[in-house]
Amino acid sequence: MHKTRLEAFSDGVLAIILTIMVLELKVPHGADFAALWPLLPVFLSYVLSFVYVGIYWNNHHHLLSGTRQVSGGVLWANLHLLFWLSLTPFATGWMGENHFAPATLALYGGILMGSAVAYAVLQHCIIAVNGGPDGPLARALGRDWKGKLSPVLYLAGIASSFWLPWLAGACYVFVALMWLVPDRRIERTLLATPQE
Amino acid sequence: MHKTRLEAFSDGVLAIILTIMVLELKVPHGADFAALWPLLPVFLSYVLSFVYVGIYWNNHHHLLSGTRQVSGGVLWANLHLLFWLSLTPFATGWMGENHFAPATLALYGGILMGSAVAYAVLQHCIIAVNGGPDGPLARALGRDWKGKLSPVLYLAGIASSFWLPWLAGACYVFVALMWLVPDRRIERTLLATPQE
Amino acid sequence: MHKTRLEAFSDGVLAIILTIMVLELKVPHGADFAALWPLLPVFLSYVLSFVYVGIYWNNHHHLLSGTRQVSGGVLWANLHLLFWLSLTPFATGWMGENHFAPATLALYGGILMGSAVAYAVLQHCIIAVNGGPDGPLARALGRDWKGKLSPVLYLAGIASSFWLPWLAGACYVFVALMWLVPDRRIERTLLATPQE
Amino acid sequence: MHKTRLEAFSDGVLAIILTIMVLELKVPHGADFAALWPLLPVFLSYVLSFVYVGIYWNNHHHLLSGTRQVSGGVLWANLHLLFWLSLTPFATGWMGENHFAPATLALYGGILMGSAVAYAVLQHCIIAVNGGPDGPLARALGRDWKGKLSPVLYLAGIASSFWLPWLAGACYVFVALMWLVPDRRIERTLLATPQE
Repeated sequence: MHKTRLEAFSDGVLAIILTIMVLELKVPHGADFAALWPLLPVFLSYVLSFVYVGIYWNNHHHLLSGTRQVSGGVLWANLHLLFWLSLTPFATGWMGENHFAPATLALYGGILMGSAVAYAVLQHCIIAVNGGPDGPLARALGRDWKGKLSPVLYLAGIASSFWLPWLAGACYVFVALMWLVPDRRIERTLLATPQE
Repeated sequence: MHKTRLEAFSDGVLAIILTIMVLELKVPHGADFAALWPLLPVFLSYVLSFVYVGIYWNNHHHLLSGTRQVSGGVLWANLHLLFWLSLTPFATGWMGENHFAPATLALYGGILMGSAVAYAVLQHCIIAVNGGPDGPLARALGRDWKGKLSPVLYLAGIASSFWLPWLAGACYVFVALMWLVPDRRIERTLLATPQE
Repeated sequence: MHKTRLEAFSDGVLAIILTIMVLELKVPHGADFAALWPLLPVFLSYVLSFVYVGIYWNNHHHLLSGTRQVSGGVLWANLHLLFWLSLTPFATGWMGENHFAPATLALYGGILMGSAVAYAVLQHCIIAVNGGPDGPLARALGRDWKGKLSPVLYLAGIASSFWLPWLAGACYVFVALMWLVPDRRIERTLLATPQE
Repeated sequence: MHKTRLEAFSDGVLAIILTIMVLELKVPHGADFAALWPLLPVFLSYVLSFVYVGIYWNNHHHLLSGTRQVSGGVLWANLHLLFWLSLTPFATGWMGENHFAPATLALYGGILMGSAVAYAVLQHCIIAVNGGPDGPLARALGRDWKGKLSPVLYLAGIASSFWLPWLAGACYVFVALMWLVPDRRIERTLLATPQE
């Protein structure tokens, strides 16, 4: 029961984050296709952030599906993750409206970094109350190389924002593509056991 | 459990899409009925989009009710559908505020088209992991003539936007009315088996 | 399962309606209490609409708790109710910002009326597939005098908007107070049977 | 079943409150870090309110997890709590945009006070239908010193708003920190019994 409500609340917050980002796509005054053109950077940053929030929902879903026990610490680690993700619409809008200016790319990377750290903390808390580092959940997660590589690439993106902005953007897009391949680690383990 | 969370997240996103569209109905400054008059096109496009999102919720509900197994591919196909639907408020607002101008009708049709393709992809992915083209879900869906006719009519609407705008609008309204009849195919199959 | 998702989706839409109404309470520029004063009519109409949406959630909850079977018609009757309720934030904002001007009172009453009719239709559809007019749900609902009196009072409110605006407001407030007493009819029946 | 829907609806409203507060963080026009500087007070008040809403979600979650029976009175006591919490985004935005001016600090404290009283009423109603003051839920909640100390500190904050604004802010931050330690009382009791 504990877990169900944690999932429901997270789903609600993630669904709203996903959807209010589209409010940054302000309806233009002109009525021809040319009026849509200036919205392109806002649209592109919306697509990137949509994919990122989708990735977090997906991974959160997989992580929780292997969770049996939820503690007070897990509840707060989860809220901490939602806090960082809730800043995504702001960073997305700032980046899109300023055509991927250096400072906006750095802030965007910073929010991604904060979310990644918060996710790692949440994963750590959940593993701690679900069998520890030798339990079935930790084994199912394996070495988690994606989770370890992502912050490195975010840091590279932040560092390059001011001298090679396109590289920063490329880092963020690359990490998103890397995660788009769904997390088969837990899934494989789960499918091995009959689902209810 | 997998399926439950997919449904809950989709419900959340669809509920928010439905509701933020009404934010385009901006409160007018005048205090008499005449002040409402300029809002009529915005209101009419809101009604049309409300019906469309309602149709997607309804069909999604029916499709998922016949689903037993969910894969990583299904999760992403579902997010892809939600992405297209999340653009509906933007297209609706642009169309309503510009009194159904040609370009806005074409974009609206394009978003409908994208949503329809995404729904077809989702349906395909779900069938693939739930018994395949000869399984009970595929049989319950039958020949799916509505699903095949809709994109044709959307294309006709987009094509006619610039020379017969009223025909484009009529296409979109017709498809909506066609789907308003609920999808009895799966329902009939489900009611034949006792519900829990 | 059908019912669960209908409830979840309705909860989502009602929760969002409830919450976006507060967005009409725009943060004032002044930093003293006097700056809050002009917001009073907007606040009062927010309170009234909050109570109304709360009443609908409450009654919807009670109605669905006595429901076993859901049909395609019920799904659409439910969406129809949500459509009318989704117009509440607009009517509330218009009424509040124009200090309860006659036309705004009439529109507010019209939206209340539409919601009441839509609720009656939903109730009718649900009874039809859950034992009919002689079944346990219909018996639990009883004579439903509140449901029959409300539209009469809404009509009285709409009619008096242009010559006795305070009476219109009094009608709407009275109906809200009348419903604040929770619907004990179904509850009593449900409590008589052990809850799961 | 009753309880499930109460939780789902509350989760929805709390998730939306949490997320629309971030809309007050308006995307600035400048594209450098200096443009973010004026947003600092808005950001700080967002963080404080995020923590408060998180605390309410957490405590609500713990309270409901010990609840077996829900009455009509509980439904309205819950809506009453959600009403006060729904005013949080307004109070947060007003406080942040006016750099913690005295009147805004007092209003913020007033909303916190209202929420605390509403929570106490809800807790009282839930205890009344779940075994009364000697039942297992009341025993699990214990003496509830945090719940009794908080209103005192809110009152101190409101009272000091106009002569020692920093003290008001310190009171609100202190109460938040005090609650950040999760409510182990019920949790301990619950963990003693096997979870399903």
